[in-house]
Amino acid sequence: MWGGRFERGPAAIMEEINASIDVDRRLWREDIEGSKAHAAMLAAAKIISDADARAIAKGLDAIAVEIDSGAFAFSKSHEDIHMNVEARLKELVGEPASRLHTARSRNDQVATDFRLYMRRSCDEIAASIRNLQRALVEKAAKHAATVMPGYTHLQIAQPITFGHHCLAYVEMLERDRGRFRDARKRMNECPLGAAALAGVPYPIDRERTAKALKFDRPTANSIDSVSARDFALETLAAAAIAASHLSRLAEEIVLWTSPHFGFAKLTDAFSTGSSIMPQKRNPDAAELCRAKVGRIAGAFHALIIVMKGLPLAYSKDMQEDKAATFAAIDDMALALAAMTGMIGDLVVNETAMREAAMRGYSTATDLADYLVRELGLAFRDAHHATGAIVALAEKKKKRLDQLTLADLRRIEPRIGADAFQRLTVDASVAARASYGGTAPANVAREVKRWQEKLK
Amino acid sequence: MWGGRFERGPAAIMEEINASIDVDRRLWREDIEGSKAHAAMLAAAKIISDADARAIAKGLDAIAVEIDSGAFAFSKSHEDIHMNVEARLKELVGEPASRLHTARSRNDQVATDFRLYMRRSCDEIAASIRNLQRALVEKAAKHAATVMPGYTHLQIAQPITFGHHCLAYVEMLERDRGRFRDARKRMNECPLGAAALAGVPYPIDRERTAKALKFDRPTANSIDSVSARDFALETLAAAAIAASHLSRLAEEIVLWTSPHFGFAKLTDAFSTGSSIMPQKRNPDAAELCRAKVGRIAGAFHALIIVMKGLPLAYSKDMQEDKAATFAAIDDMALALAAMTGMIGDLVVNETAMREAAMRGYSTATDLADYLVRELGLAFRDAHHATGAIVALAEKKKKRLDQLTLADLRRIEPRIGADAFQRLTVDASVAARASYGGTAPANVAREVKRWQEKLK
Amino acid sequence: MWGGRFERGPAAIMEEINASIDVDRRLWREDIEGSKAHAAMLAAAKIISDADARAIAKGLDAIAVEIDSGAFAFSKSHEDIHMNVEARLKELVGEPASRLHTARSRNDQVATDFRLYMRRSCDEIAASIRNLQRALVEKAAKHAATVMPGYTHLQIAQPITFGHHCLAYVEMLERDRGRFRDARKRMNECPLGAAALAGVPYPIDRERTAKALKFDRPTANSIDSVSARDFALETLAAAAIAASHLSRLAEEIVLWTSPHFGFAKLTDAFSTGSSIMPQKRNPDAAELCRAKVGRIAGAFHALIIVMKGLPLAYSKDMQEDKAATFAAIDDMALALAAMTGMIGDLVVNETAMREAAMRGYSTATDLADYLVRELGLAFRDAHHATGAIVALAEKKKKRLDQLTLADLRRIEPRIGADAFQRLTVDASVAARASYGGTAPANVAREVKRWQEKLK
Amino acid sequence: MWGGRFERGPAAIMEEINASIDVDRRLWREDIEGSKAHAAMLAAAKIISDADARAIAKGLDAIAVEIDSGAFAFSKSHEDIHMNVEARLKELVGEPASRLHTARSRNDQVATDFRLYMRRSCDEIAASIRNLQRALVEKAAKHAATVMPGYTHLQIAQPITFGHHCLAYVEMLERDRGRFRDARKRMNECPLGAAALAGVPYPIDRERTAKALKFDRPTANSIDSVSARDFALETLAAAAIAASHLSRLAEEIVLWTSPHFGFAKLTDAFSTGSSIMPQKRNPDAAELCRAKVGRIAGAFHALIIVMKGLPLAYSKDMQEDKAATFAAIDDMALALAAMTGMIGDLVVNETAMREAAMRGYSTATDLADYLVRELGLAFRDAHHATGAIVALAEKKKKRLDQLTLADLRRIEPRIGADAFQRLTVDASVAARASYGGTAPANVAREVKRWQEKLK
Repeated sequence: MWGGRFERGPAAIMEEINASIDVDRRLWREDIEGSKAHAAMLAAAKIISDADARAIAKGLDAIAVEIDSGAFAFSKSHEDIHMNVEARLKELVGEPASRLHTARSRNDQVATDFRLYMRRSCDEIAASIRNLQRALVEKAAKHAATVMPGYTHLQIAQPITFGHHCLAYVEMLERDRGRFRDARKRMNECPLGAAALAGVPYPIDRERTAKALKFDRPTANSIDSVSARDFALETLAAAAIAASHLSRLAEEIVLWTSPHFGFAKLTDAFSTGSSIMPQKRNPDAAELCRAKVGRIAGAFHALIIVMKGLPLAYSKDMQEDKAATFAAIDDMALALAAMTGMIGDLVVNETAMREAAMRGYSTATDLADYLVRELGLAFRDAHHATGAIVALAEKKKKRLDQLTLADLRRIEPRIGADAFQRLTVDASVAARASYGGTAPANVAREVKRWQEKLK
Repeated sequence: MWGGRFERGPAAIMEEINASIDVDRRLWREDIEGSKAHAAMLAAAKIISDADARAIAKGLDAIAVEIDSGAFAFSKSHEDIHMNVEARLKELVGEPASRLHTARSRNDQVATDFRLYMRRSCDEIAASIRNLQRALVEKAAKHAATVMPGYTHLQIAQPITFGHHCLAYVEMLERDRGRFRDARKRMNECPLGAAALAGVPYPIDRERTAKALKFDRPTANSIDSVSARDFALETLAAAAIAASHLSRLAEEIVLWTSPHFGFAKLTDAFSTGSSIMPQKRNPDAAELCRAKVGRIAGAFHALIIVMKGLPLAYSKDMQEDKAATFAAIDDMALALAAMTGMIGDLVVNETAMREAAMRGYSTATDLADYLVRELGLAFRDAHHATGAIVALAEKKKKRLDQLTLADLRRIEPRIGADAFQRLTVDASVAARASYGGTAPANVAREVKRWQEKLK
Repeated sequence: MWGGRFERGPAAIMEEINASIDVDRRLWREDIEGSKAHAAMLAAAKIISDADARAIAKGLDAIAVEIDSGAFAFSKSHEDIHMNVEARLKELVGEPASRLHTARSRNDQVATDFRLYMRRSCDEIAASIRNLQRALVEKAAKHAATVMPGYTHLQIAQPITFGHHCLAYVEMLERDRGRFRDARKRMNECPLGAAALAGVPYPIDRERTAKALKFDRPTANSIDSVSARDFALETLAAAAIAASHLSRLAEEIVLWTSPHFGFAKLTDAFSTGSSIMPQKRNPDAAELCRAKVGRIAGAFHALIIVMKGLPLAYSKDMQEDKAATFAAIDDMALALAAMTGMIGDLVVNETAMREAAMRGYSTATDLADYLVRELGLAFRDAHHATGAIVALAEKKKKRLDQLTLADLRRIEPRIGADAFQRLTVDASVAARASYGGTAPANVAREVKRWQEKLK
Repeated sequence: MWGGRFERGPAAIMEEINASIDVDRRLWREDIEGSKAHAAMLAAAKIISDADARAIAKGLDAIAVEIDSGAFAFSKSHEDIHMNVEARLKELVGEPASRLHTARSRNDQVATDFRLYMRRSCDEIAASIRNLQRALVEKAAKHAATVMPGYTHLQIAQPITFGHHCLAYVEMLERDRGRFRDARKRMNECPLGAAALAGVPYPIDRERTAKALKFDRPTANSIDSVSARDFALETLAAAAIAASHLSRLAEEIVLWTSPHFGFAKLTDAFSTGSSIMPQKRNPDAAELCRAKVGRIAGAFHALIIVMKGLPLAYSKDMQEDKAATFAAIDDMALALAAMTGMIGDLVVNETAMREAAMRGYSTATDLADYLVRELGLAFRDAHHATGAIVALAEKKKKRLDQLTLADLRRIEPRIGADAFQRLTVDASVAARASYGGTAPANVAREVKRWQEKLK
């Protein structure tokens, strides 16, 4: 590639550390797409002839077929996907191939390919997130009024509805989707034409290539165009945050399907088992989803380190941007698809959830709120009185709704019989009808809003 | 706080690990602001009396004065800023203080305070980024036509202009600013009223509190409201990426001020020195800016780990969200301010830059482009011919523009005398007038665009 | 400090980013200890007079008293602990103070102080780990035969003993302790005398200072001495790994104390509660211990980023080595102490553990092993037969030990009545007497081994 | 695998996320080695017959040949390397294959395989580090007296020798090697026989298997045996730290080969070039070595996240331990080999180094030390006087050794003519003969020590 100026070829270890074809071959579609747009623009701008542009386009199409069919022979000595394609093009179409590299360089070419790939990844991940949201909304629709315990510190705190719980994840995922959308929007500028780092002395039409490749506009600074990798970092950060959300949902599935909770089970489709312990439906897919945040956040960390302290413009360090990023994108896609499958697959045990929700004086707060609202106690005082009532119930080994009115009045004489209506789990969730609260009516309304939004 | 139900107080080590007042005391403004808005809403919704709301507001204002003046006695036994303020309020205004906690819980309170703080941090960082952009644009305005070497692999590649180089950072920083804006927008929903996790059975007006605290709207799901920390993660990711950009600029300042480059110097205001080596103006501030990405990215990683696998809703782990985040925000602010100062302070040595730009056959690409454009060679062939010419120059120990026309024609007989005009560094940069290229005219135009935009 | 060579003082922001006194003041003991050793060596080597050395030692002792008592006035304009101490020494003893800095520089001074601090931290953490191991061994001694479920995938797999479970953590912690010991050993070389980076032209006795400061030997290369921070990185890595172990034990405490498991409870000393939900003993300390790995691993990552790509010898970036490291060391110490307290505090519910261990056909493997050992079936065939037996039990809604011999023989006619002896949880754990297995006899033996070792 | 208990097969996405064969197939040697040792022990303990053990060994040997030759057909439906091998063994030898899994489980099997792999990796990396150390020692031997500038803050500080600089890295690498040795030692215990998590009810001989596989001893606790991954974490931490050292050396090679330094050049074997810029020898391999710390530290981060908060014993999350770890080990090996090649390849420009060392009053400290040692000035006063002399030299635009004695005496009348002898770079480095100092004599002695040690 750098002609006769080098007397000796590279050392074997140099060739090995330098070649990136095993990693970047997956950019082949983007590379060919970008080259076609570039050639068409060169012809339109009269920098190359129409005949050359046609020959190049035809050759590139032929290469695409070869790669797609597995017939293409990738070579490590051609280092990367760009040189592999160019070398083959030369074989196929001869001299016009030598004109393709006019007014561009590998630096802007790789930046363009990588952006195209990451843009597509953002789109695909956003679509996968929407699929998962839909699965959760469907579950919420079915379980708008299914009562389960709400937890703080993994202690039973207050009754909630399972639908409301599902919608909490829909909210998180909506923000995740927004992050991928924003990342996509910000990266959607075309670096092609920045060349090595300084721009070119040809009358190129960067608007045209940008448009052909569906970019919003060309990048405004040639040095930045070949030096920047924040588009990959931002996407990885969005992925790491989304994966942290998946890890939380996955943890809950592991808990819910454990015999100690028994809130849900996964069918054969999403479990692994044991030939001798039939009840053992190991939630392997959930555990793997829980783990994926590791490698995805690790990829963000890796790339931050790679970019740290690099002077402008291009340094070879930046070739290390792809391997970890691609693996993270794959993991993200896999985890989203697996989680969507699991949510659809999950069979909820409503009885177990309801029974658990009734444990632990979970409606004690409702009693305190009764004292505030009906008897006008200050909240802190109501809290104190309720504490005493619960202590009494505990001593008598009864649930709150199993105490007598006389019991209650020993602590607070003004309590009325109407207090008992507040102490069931159904009353408790129904009462939390403030905006954003867990009341079944709220859940039903939110489900509709989401169904509309995610159509 | 949890009344008489506990027989023994906490172990000393429990108290020590549990207390967060040393970290979260800096949320005092947000805590008081949030409580005032909550009390006003409770009164407007007739949940507490106007008199109580007035007493609460007055008390809170008094506490604000105490804290601001340093007179407030923070106590570890009151654990955190929220309980410290509430306890003092009780002392100051008595019974009404007990009504303030109606229809809220510490969980939604801390989520509100933390969002308010992070929102303000986003605004402040965005403003600081703009200051740095302005400093860079000013530098670019002054050096739109100052020629320096452009590098790839820290080898001299092509001449560029220093103004163009500065504007590359302005572009990066603009995307950074966009990330903080997006993070701010996404987090700007008010969790107040979510209470512990399930919402409340009071007729609260969440729109009102949201509006009073300048949130766009209330959060739509109470469980998500108290469980989510992605707003902090997103802000930290934006900060880590921005800090990686600063680390690159800082590295360049270290290089430029090194005697081996001699491109720029920092004045006494931004250097440390040595009493015996007068030339030694150590670029300490640049080195510290280069390092800051460590702790900022470390904070992102810390919080991802904290949040990994936490079941909903609130777990105490989430108290570990603040210390590293606050330190990262402080570091970000410090690094941006220091970098802005340094850019303003930087004295550029135009002669040194220009001389370096003339080294290394930096205009060889211009010769190749001449062969393509004027003689119609295919780019790869032009590349090859130029290589031969440079080899000749090297052999003769001359610069390209010191060769004779005869020299050039030994390689490519059709070369005209006009070729020499392309071989100066000024011609080289002027020729790169494609959109985004380094030409002084482009830089001047971009400077204007940025001056307008950053007004 | 750098005398009259600078015409203007530093910019305010420069001073702010540059000063490290708020962070490194905690090195005061090490700084004074190191200076005393250095002065004594200088006198012994006749580089300064005995009288000067005595004056310096006396002055340093006086400063130690001032700092310890809170009387010392730290100043940001003196940047760091080293300059603060030196400036005060000059005030206290005059001219001899100017001789203290002979044959050393801040670079080797700070490296020495930091190593001394980290060495002490390693010792203290190792001691804290041993305390935690002792608490776990004590628990294991008490519960050598307490049967609980062993889990894979959080599904009940086989009965184990709680003592055995505790000893698993003792093993992990023993390796953690080993890592701190190894880190300590590797860092225990004295950099003092490396000076700025190149060594000194004085006849100093580095063995003597090394010995005085209890280092094993002086460092062998002056450049490495001031450039290296791998001693801090290694310590942080050891801490991150140890913290990951704590996060696992903490997760288990959160699970065990959840009402769904009910395996254990923490007393008032290690719980936070709710005034209205008396059963709610929130395991806050466990959750905080679970979270600590975040900030500790974050500190390792921060420092790796700081050190990445720094040319030798000293760069100011390295000042960013301390803040995150100190915070991580503090967190490690806090988490170990809190966990030790919790383990001691934990009250185990043996009945709940045993009942859970009997669920889920947990002894099915024992039946399979019976078929292999007594009837000579191949393991995979025994597995298969057992699967059929469990299916039968499931169909009949019985535990394995509630089936009749006839039931068993329907699947495998050769099964004898002795099979039933294998199906109790006690028989199951007792049978696993292979080295390292969960049998109570093993646990008792291991407890003795550990008690001896941890004395 | 789990027999007829599952009615439906796994969902396609479940199969995809679950299968690890693409990653863990590289454990095939370890898997076969472990199974052979296990079978031999089972026969020796009379748990299976000698004939079965022989059949198993023969079958496993045949499989090894198949895999090694590329003839083995790996299958995703067999999930992982362990099931792939076992399934093939069944085909090859029939019934005895069903007895191989007696007294073990996949959990202890995978733990054993992974430890064997990591142990070998530690050995190989340690050997590679030694190779790099040797290359550096050889360079140091050649350049024991080659003078170059020593830097702090990338400003020229004092003259040093290039040999001394090389040996600084030898020291760092020695500690790196120690970390891998310690990691190896700590992990070298055999988990085989821990089975699923609880040990086995067979009279197995774990000492025998441990010995056969060259482990120091069997692990002492069965739960820990299958739950722990700290051996991988420790190895990754050691690799991350070593890679940070490589990143520093790589940065220096990038600087030294830049035209602004011109201290060294890489030959064609370790450069990439440009066909038109002959001087451009891009140090790609150095840049890639600089970048590798990213992915390696990222792998540590990934695994810490995976392990965080996992309850004992085995969870499927732990399957995510290998992909990032294997990639990091590969990168480490590649970077060490490439760096060793580069160090050997590096051609040093002694003239350029020496000239640079003479710049910047680099011997000013020597003058100050003269004033202390010969005239008895206090160091701080000597510093001050030297500052004034340098100021004078700067004013006169001369080097220190170009001043006259009268010049010097204007500042400090007692200075003798002998002072000039101290001011050459050779005198400066020769004078720094304190232990660890840069004096050529020291370097020569250290080179011998290392040559002996690294034999």
